Amino acid sequence: MDNPQELFDRLIASDRRAAARLISMVENNRPGASEVVKRLHAHAGKAHIVGITGSPGTGKSSLVSRVARELRNRRHTIGIIAVDPTSPFTGGAFLGDRIRMQELATDPGVFIRSMGSRGALGGLAAATNDAINILDAFGKDVILVETVGAGQAEVDIVRYAHTSIVITMPGSGDEIQAIKSGIMEIGDIFCVNKADREGAARALAELRMMVDTSGHFGEGEWKPPVIPTVALTGQGSVELVDALQSHRAYLEAAGLLDQKVRERARAELLEIINRRVARAVLATVDEEGPMSGLVERIAGTRELDPHTAARLVIEHLLKESAAGDGRLP
Amino acid sequence: MDNPQELFDRLIASDRRAAARLISMVENNRPGASEVVKRLHAHAGKAHIVGITGSPGTGKSSLVSRVARELRNRRHTIGIIAVDPTSPFTGGAFLGDRIRMQELATDPGVFIRSMGSRGALGGLAAATNDAINILDAFGKDVILVETVGAGQAEVDIVRYAHTSIVITMPGSGDEIQAIKSGIMEIGDIFCVNKADREGAARALAELRMMVDTSGHFGEGEWKPPVIPTVALTGQGSVELVDALQSHRAYLEAAGLLDQKVRERARAELLEIINRRVARAVLATVDEEGPMSGLVERIAGTRELDPHTAARLVIEHLLKESAAGDGRLP
Repeated sequence: MDNPQELFDRLIASDRRAAARLISMVENNRPGASEVVKRLHAHAGKAHIVGITGSPGTGKSSLVSRVARELRNRRHTIGIIAVDPTSPFTGGAFLGDRIRMQELATDPGVFIRSMGSRGALGGLAAATNDAINILDAFGKDVILVETVGAGQAEVDIVRYAHTSIVITMPGSGDEIQAIKSGIMEIGDIFCVNKADREGAARALAELRMMVDTSGHFGEGEWKPPVIPTVALTGQGSVELVDALQSHRAYLEAAGLLDQKVRERARAELLEIINRRVARAVLATVDEEGPMSGLVERIAGTRELDPHTAARLVIEHLLKESAAGDGRLP
Repeated sequence: MDNPQELFDRLIASDRRAAARLISMVENNRPGASEVVKRLHAHAGKAHIVGITGSPGTGKSSLVSRVARELRNRRHTIGIIAVDPTSPFTGGAFLGDRIRMQELATDPGVFIRSMGSRGALGGLAAATNDAINILDAFGKDVILVETVGAGQAEVDIVRYAHTSIVITMPGSGDEIQAIKSGIMEIGDIFCVNKADREGAARALAELRMMVDTSGHFGEGEWKPPVIPTVALTGQGSVELVDALQSHRAYLEAAGLLDQKVRERARAELLEIINRRVARAVLATVDEEGPMSGLVERIAGTRELDPHTAARLVIEHLLKESAAGDGRLP
């Protein structure tokens, strides 16, 4: 099945195993993967890409299951991508999620996939983008991308979704910290999960006030709704999916969807270039590389500062390439 | 004071305002900043760089204050860098931290600084590295770098510290999520804060088990200790600082400190190159750039996939540079 042509044909014919295989190939930088991904590009571009993020413990995964089920009730097919740095302590995380998602996993209208960081330099975001595009070309109507953490890579993944949902929960006594998480600015929809807990009314009121004071919302402009949910019981799932679909309709009506799609493409382009450059740089400065002594000159003898060293590496890569012997592109 | 030579002289003479000014210049990419940073490199390399991370709500900032006070008791000078994506909702975060840190801030042996993400591409990590180096050259013995979130950028900052402290707290009912946060693998020291709360014994036991099962710890090898603390009362601060200093001593004795220093330099080099390349790429594909139509061909007409587009951009940058008219280096 690793034959690119066969993989491509199967994927277009909605073969689940082909999709799973191709995503694995992308994650592991397998030869042939990029050829298929490139050809799929023309077949993608129809899905609604939804980013879902929030701090650990807010019940993101359970809520994603609820959203997925509600979308299935409305006859949409779904891709779910859980982006998560793998912890070697657990030998691959997601066990909890997998249990929660079990019912969904047997539904042929749902495709679930976890993406772990393999320590690649910027590789997680790039591989996730590829996975999104694969499931898009595979024909899924809605792609839910769940991310853990508020780091730049995760924020970027969510930022460039068409619709971003930010999940919080009633205060664990440190609201300042929640606000600080840097994900508030990117929410199209806010969700207070575990809304049956003490402090839910306050959390909702605070969040609504933050939205109110964050900008002027003119006639016809999108104002992020703040929705209470209880993932455990399913309360609020209908409202959340309504909001999700309203946001998509708003983007289309306002002509903003095209803009989002372009921003995503631009970010994706930059991700890919960053990864390629990083690979070329490491091949240059690591052992056996033509500039393998460079790191020692920065960190050991300290005769070279990293900014000057950076210029030297770029100059080397440019010269190498001009000589027709480049590590780039 | 923006004169590079004057800034440099003042910094070397331990002028606090000069350090603050230079970090601001670095954050805002001000001309002249890089010249000073480059010259400072030879004066840096003595500080113990300590990364401190953990999920929001674990009481990181309070614990950092405690660690700082204990280090001051031991006559060490300290730099504290709080890395945190700024949220536009709050117009600059850290208010809570600032209150907590107030007592420390009046101590001339302590230098405190917040670093916020200004939306720069990989800019946060690069600016943080510069700030670390500035405080190192400024003569601080220990530099505590506190990060929020478990994203790649934050993880990298902590990963390349000499000593990494990971803070957790007694279970908020979702231990799986805590493990998933991707920061467990990088801890040299684990800390269960709020250890006077219910569930502390269980959290300690679980964490110790995770450490035990995570690897074989041979004779003389470092096995991450798991330390209970209560930042509110100061309980455990002495043990935590003991562990911190033991780890540094271990690294030196085992000859591993040099290796860490080299890994940091390598990561820093890559950060700087990534940022430069990103700037050149955006100047190429954005409006007015020579390839401004490219994003439209990817996202609009879909005639071009992002991988092929990435190759075209790199080829363009190489050609431009060969013609002596490059945006790189």
